This record gives sequence, C-alpha cells and structure tokens, in this order.
Amino acid sequence: MTSIPQTALEVLAAFDAETLTPEVYLDALLDHCAQTEPDVRAWSHLDPSAARRELAQAQRTGTLRGLPLGVKDLFHVTSMPRGCGSPIYTGYVSSVDASVVALARLAGAYVMGKTETTEFATYKPAPTRNPTSLAHTPGGSSSGSAAAVAAGMVPLAFGSQTAGSVIRPAAYCGVVGYKPSFDLIDTSGVKGLSRSFDTIGVFARSVPDAALLVESVTGQPFLEATQNVSPPSMLGLCQSPAWDEIEPEMQSAWDHLCARLQTKTTTRDIVLPSPYADALQAHPMIMAQEAFQALAYEWQAHRDHLSPALRDMLANGQARTGTAHNDDRVMISTLKARFEADLGNTPIFITPSAPGAAPGYETGTGSPVCSRLWTLLGAPCVNVPGLKTSDQRPLGIQVVGPIGRDAEVLNVATWLSDILMDDG
Amino acid sequence: MTSIPQTALEVLAAFDAETLTPEVYLDALLDHCAQTEPDVRAWSHLDPSAARRELAQAQRTGTLRGLPLGVKDLFHVTSMPRGCGSPIYTGYVSSVDASVVALARLAGAYVMGKTETTEFATYKPAPTRNPTSLAHTPGGSSSGSAAAVAAGMVPLAFGSQTAGSVIRPAAYCGVVGYKPSFDLIDTSGVKGLSRSFDTIGVFARSVPDAALLVESVTGQPFLEATQNVSPPSMLGLCQSPAWDEIEPEMQSAWDHLCARLQTKTTTRDIVLPSPYADALQAHPMIMAQEAFQALAYEWQAHRDHLSPALRDMLANGQARTGTAHNDDRVMISTLKARFEADLGNTPIFITPSAPGAAPGYETGTGSPVCSRLWTLLGAPCVNVPGLKTSDQRPLGIQVVGPIGRDAEVLNVATWLSDILMDDG
Repeated sequence: MTSIPQTALEVLAAFDAETLTPEVYLDALLDHCAQTEPDVRAWSHLDPSAARRELAQAQRTGTLRGLPLGVKDLFHVTSMPRGCGSPIYTGYVSSVDASVVALARLAGAYVMGKTETTEFATYKPAPTRNPTSLAHTPGGSSSGSAAAVAAGMVPLAFGSQTAGSVIRPAAYCGVVGYKPSFDLIDTSGVKGLSRSFDTIGVFARSVPDAALLVESVTGQPFLEATQNVSPPSMLGLCQSPAWDEIEPEMQSAWDHLCARLQTKTTTRDIVLPSPYADALQAHPMIMAQEAFQALAYEWQAHRDHLSPALRDMLANGQARTGTAHNDDRVMISTLKARFEADLGNTPIFITPSAPGAAPGYETGTGSPVCSRLWTLLGAPCVNVPGLKTSDQRPLGIQVVGPIGRDAEVLNVATWLSDILMDDG
Repeated sequence: MTSIPQTALEVLAAFDAETLTPEVYLDALLDHCAQTEPDVRAWSHLDPSAARRELAQAQRTGTLRGLPLGVKDLFHVTSMPRGCGSPIYTGYVSSVDASVVALARLAGAYVMGKTETTEFATYKPAPTRNPTSLAHTPGGSSSGSAAAVAAGMVPLAFGSQTAGSVIRPAAYCGVVGYKPSFDLIDTSGVKGLSRSFDTIGVFARSVPDAALLVESVTGQPFLEATQNVSPPSMLGLCQSPAWDEIEPEMQSAWDHLCARLQTKTTTRDIVLPSPYADALQAHPMIMAQEAFQALAYEWQAHRDHLSPALRDMLANGQARTGTAHNDDRVMISTLKARFEADLGNTPIFITPSAPGAAPGYETGTGSPVCSRLWTLLGAPCVNVPGLKTSDQRPLGIQVVGPIGRDAEVLNVATWLSDILMDDG
C-alpha cells in the first residue's frame, strides 16, 4: 500500500493525473483487505467480484469520481445483504439504496462493501477489532466503518450516531469522524433507532476528506471550509458535564493540549449551566422510548431474537408515558434554541471524544457519555485524531459547535488536526 | 351494513358486549367492499383470505382489540405488496411492518389491506374515485385511505401528509382526517418524501375514533380529550394566506359557519403577519429539494419510471443549493418557535381544509394550498366534515393549533363536529 495515496483527495488527484486508475486502486485495497480483514473483521459483506461490478457501474464524473465507500450495515445498498447486526435479518438482501448512498453514487462513488454494526446500533458488539490494537474494541455502533478506514481498507465510510456511534469509534480507531448537524442528511433507507437523535456521519483519514463526502451528498460548501485554514480567533475548552467519567490519561492529555492551544489562540473555559447536565442524564431514556417505537416491528414479531440487553432497553422505553416524551422534546428544543447564546463568544469548542482510549474488546464498545449531549443538541462534531496514550493508543478530541455551524467546526477541526499531526 | 356499527368505538363496544365478533365484522366489511370497491378502487391490495389470516393472528386485547385498518401503500406491511403508486415497485412485497403498523398490532389491530396512494405521495393520481361522487377526485395523496373510510369499507386508516395529503382527501370525502403534530409518530418503514414535513396521519368516521388510533400508537392521552366536550372559551377564525384561492361556495359556507359559531363562543379573526405568507410560498420548493434527496435512489436508478411531473419536481429540487436549504430550515424553525405567540389568546383556530369541494377526477387531486403552511409549522390539524355544497358534496373545515397542542385541537374538533353533525 505504500505507493497508494492515503486520503481520498490524494486519490482523486492521482485519478485526475492518470497516475492511478480506480481499478488499480480497488485492487490494491482488496489486496490489503485480504491481509488485514481476517484480524480486524470490519466488513459484514465484502465480495471482491461484487465490488468490481460496483466500480464497473460507477459513473466516473462528480466530486467522488471513482471512489469506493464502506457503508454501515444499517443502510440499504442494492443487491447487498443488510443485517443490522441482528439475527432477525440474516439472509436479507436489499433491493434499494438508502438515499445517501444514491446521492453518493450520483457524485461518482461506489459501494465497496458493508461494514459491521452493533445490534441495531445499540450495545451488542460486532465482531470487529480495533486495528490499532486487536485486543481492544473499535467502539460502536459504527464499528466496521471506523475500523475499515483506520486499517486503510477503504478511504471513506458512512456511519450513524444516536448517542456516540460516530465520534467514539473514530476516537478509538484514530481516524476522523464527522457527525454533521442533525437532519442535514436524509436518513431514508437507514434503519432508525431514535428519531430525535439519529444522524448519518462519515469516517475519513482527514478532515477535508470528511468534508468532501458530506458536501457531495448535501450540496453544502464544506470542502472550502477546510482550505486555507487560520487559527480561530477564540476557542472554547469544554470539559462537559461528563467530566467525572474522564480517565486519567485523557485528563492529562487534555491539560497538555489546552496549554498548548493557549499559545496559539485565545481560549475560554466553557461551563454549561445545569440544564445541560440534566439533558445528558435524560438522553438514554429518550433514546430507549424512541427505540421502542422505531423497533416496534422487531419487538412485536421477533422479540426472541433481540439480545437480552436490547429487550430490557425497549421494555424500559415502552414503559414510559407519552407525556414524559412530550416533556423531553420540549426540553430538547428549548436547549437547542439557547445553546448558541449560552456559548457566547466561543461558539466553537473542543471537548474529549470519549473518556479515554479504547477499552478491551471483551468489555463492550465503550461509553458514549462524551457524545450524548452534543447529539441531543443536534450539534456538528468532528473527532480529530493525533493524541495518544503512553502506550501509543489513540485518544480523540472533538470539535463541536451549535447546530448549523458545520463549516466553522470543520474549519477549526482542520486547524487542530494540522497541529496534532505535527506531533506524528 | 345497517346493523353494523359505524364508528370504531361503537364496534369495540359491540365486541366487548359480545353482540359482534371481529370475524363477523370483517365478513360484513368484505361483503361491503365486494359491492363498493369496483367503483371506488380505494385498495391497492385487498385479499379477503389474507385479511382473515391477519385477523386470525391479531391479539384480541388492547385499545384496538380486533379492529381492522387500511394502510396507505407507502407503508410497509409484512407479506403485502408495497407499490408507492409507482411502477418502480410493481411486484415488491414487504418483509417487515412500518413501526406504526407494528405499534397498532401491539394495541390489537390488524391490517385489512393496503390503500391507494398517488405516485410517492406526489401528484400523479391513484385510480381511486370519491365515494360521495364517483366523477370527482377523493383528493390525494392518501386517496385510498380517505375513500375506504368514507365508503364504509374500513373504520380506520393510516395516511401521511407532506403538503395536504391527509386533510384534503378527508375534506373531499367527508370524513375525519387527523394530522398530528410533526414527528409525534415514528415514520420508520414509511416511504419518505420531504423530511421536514412528512407526518403520519389517520382517517376515521369520528374525531374520537381518530384520537383513539393515534393514542394507541403514541401513548398520548388523546381519547379523553374528546370526551365531555364543552365550548372553547375562545376560537380563532383564520382565512389563512391562501384565502384568494378559496372558491365561492367555500367562502359562503365559511361565512355562515363563522356567524353561527359566534353565537356559541367568543371568536377572533386571526390575520398572520407576512412571514407566514412567505412560508406558504416557500413550502413547494423546500418539498422539492427534500424530495430529490428522499427519492435519490429512484432518481439515480429508475428515472425513466418516474412520471414527467415528478421528474420535473425532482430536477427543480436538485438544482437548489444547500445554502438555500439552510436558509429555509432556519425560517421554518423561527416560525415554529413564534407561531404560538403570534396566535395570542386564540391558539386553537379553524380554517378551510381545501379551496372548495372535490374537483373532477380528470383534473388531478386538488390543491393542497390550504394545508401547506400548517404542515410546515408542524401544527396538529383535524378535518371536520359536515358542511356541504349546494349539490351536497363535502366541504371540509380544519381545526388547527400550535405544535404539541393536539389534545386541545382534538377537543375543539369534537365540539365543532357535534355542531356540524346536528345539521345532518
């Protein structure tokens, strides 16, 4: 793989310069997968001949001309299995594309394969291992997308986040993860979990690559926000209401990073008032109640094939009243409306992406506590890799801003990435 | 059908009193369908033996114990065809239920059959005729659900509204149509058209029946809001920014109704400021842009099988910029946030459901102009039948309120329905 460019933008430049063809690139990726996938197990479906057929049918024009994508196994992709990480859908093959997949095809991309998810994007782990350390989890629920990009098996992948399912696996695997503003991308054809929170996101090896993919499926001018980057005039530093769950290595890395950034721009500590801590506490129950509704068919018709943990979660959701849900939703819209004002003159801020580095594979997929609040607020978030533990495992920092301010978040994430990559 | 109760609540009372069984009721409905359906063509799929199998598998407990439902052909129902009103999906059979269908099953209902929709809930008419006058359209896009309930073929049916697709057909067919607050019901498994607007709604023969069905799938205490109704202390009368499209017969009926209601409660004319008229104008383009995204797969893979009108709409949507969409969405959330305050002391109001009675079948499915604004605002709306043209064709009045105030809207709709039914 040494002669193959690492970022999607570099690959496109090589395609344009005719120093690389999409076919040669795919063959190189498939060769690399043949070496790597038996250990990592990022893919729920990877068939080299199907991938080559996909490429043969791809259009060669557009912003993603000839680029392959990994697609989380919650998304429909025509003629590929969709398992949703559940035995209920074993053997099911999609006859349509999710909207976002079709939009990516219209921009010239094709689907290389489907990537592993936890059970319906909840807790039961996928078989995927962390490519940076096989004994550890890649995080979830977009386990396979994060791992496939981290392992160099595909340059770009789609995932989704309802609690911390893009940012956390990106942090654990040491790649860029970008969860756009809530509802920026149409979720048609993607299995739903919690409609107030479900957000399609992307994994990439650079912030501009992530911006390119989201720009390609939304028409938002995000790539230009990652070019010609200068330091932000003000940067918020937010320990978040989840700080008491942050592990010592992350606390130490955070302190060092903040001290360093203070030499490069003006920073301000952000302490959010108590309703935000209440919202963080409320997120899991809102998610459980909406998950009961979203998965009502599986609950009604296939309850025995749900994992015990998911059954418990759905039963808890079913037990909540409609009135409680109304109160929750008023709370969410109230906080969304005031969040930008509460951030004052530092609307864009950094905060840890996860409590620490990836925990052991056997322990589950790690905690989403560092992402629940930002997901609830519909906030755009970008995980920036580069920090490491003492034993060289990735620690993630996310750049976050108010809903709708994706371009500024991407801009600051590019700036931060340039700083952290200098360390490497 | 004379010995069969007409409303769902009466049917349930007969089931509970054991004066009627669900099997006898279904047989009576199927007999009636055999007479009526050849003219009305409300059903895209109605197989008596499949309906009896559905009933045999239904649970006999819950708020909908043993009641049959019509389900718009945009919704997945296990083992039934889903055509979406498009040749693209000819022969497709669903392997899952839409979430709302599964929730209705958990409440004891079963699916009698699938009802006709216009093409992907847009403009190309279904074959359905208006049961009150076969030469006229039943309206769209939930054409079959409205017609099936109006013709007495099923007591309750699901539909969906993106512009005026529940309220308008209910008005034209002379039945109750209830579009709840935006996002009150999970839309998983329902083909999407425009994610800022798509809302699942219901058709029924009484306001309490409609409240019962939505309560059964959301846990919201709506049925009690329709019991022991007294006049509202204040009622708004809103001609809406669409008033210049209102036809003379509706204008006359409206004037008489308002005069009559002024003898029963305090009324106030509502004149909305200009941003609401702008929003009404903006709705079609937002819908087109989001429809391009929602139907990206059909556009990308099956463009030749879209109707010319839908292709034009999607091409217009594709041509809009992401920035325009951002601006639209800020406008929508701003108006949603101020709507309740703008209504002042008359938060619940009435307004015409459609410009007039149903136009001729050959002219299309009528105009959604009287519903676009309320859909954009996420407002709960209930069509109340009872008014008629001089040739006895239904004219619909809708009761509307701010998002989240469904119970009060249902309460006022029950009061209004009692008044209008006195005329009959």
